[in-house]
Amino acid sequence: MKKTDLIAENGFSEGGLSRLLVHDSPYFKILNFNFKAGQELPVHSHDIEGQLSMTVLEGEGEFLGEGDVAIPAKAGDVLISDIAEPHGLRAHSDLRLLVTIAPPI
Amino acid sequence: MKKTDLIAENGFSEGGLSRLLVHDSPYFKILNFNFKAGQELPVHSHDIEGQLSMTVLEGEGEFLGEGDVAIPAKAGDVLISDIAEPHGLRAHSDLRLLVTIAPPI
Repeated sequence: MKKTDLIAENGFSEGGLSRLLVHDSPYFKILNFNFKAGQELPVHSHDIEGQLSMTVLEGEGEFLGEGDVAIPAKAGDVLISDIAEPHGLRAHSDLRLLVTIAPPI
Repeated sequence: MKKTDLIAENGFSEGGLSRLLVHDSPYFKILNFNFKAGQELPVHSHDIEGQLSMTVLEGEGEFLGEGDVAIPAKAGDVLISDIAEPHGLRAHSDLRLLVTIAPPI
């Protein structure tokens, strides 16, 4: 068993997303991204099998998709996307995001 | 893309854990368990390959392991465990937990 305290171990940066690799195994990869208000994980995709979840732990923003898709995102929201489907996130407030990718990229 | 609003879609129950299946696919299974203070997910394990993550979204408690293992758990904490390793959780306050299992059981 391995515990990670995301609040203690990852902060925020004016220079861009603050990224923490929480876990990487043959089963899944888990990443924590912290956004200052206004920062964005640009819409992207990878042409491979698998899915990811994006869980908002704190803050508000929008999940982004193909074209102009923007889905309101707040603490307690979970988005599921194929890895091959365009996805991203824009933060309206300081925001903590947990991303789980299976199988790991 | 599919969004689940855990706050709106799952509440708390005096009768026991309140369980919401968030997602189930060939890649991972995602479950949300809400605990009233004092409720517990008893220590258990399954003798199969794979790992799980337990993310505390709100509240405080303890991650439980084999024997007397009890690791403090609070919002923003992520625990990784093999599925075959004994794991559980005890809530000290009302607590929202997100569990991701890969590959899905």
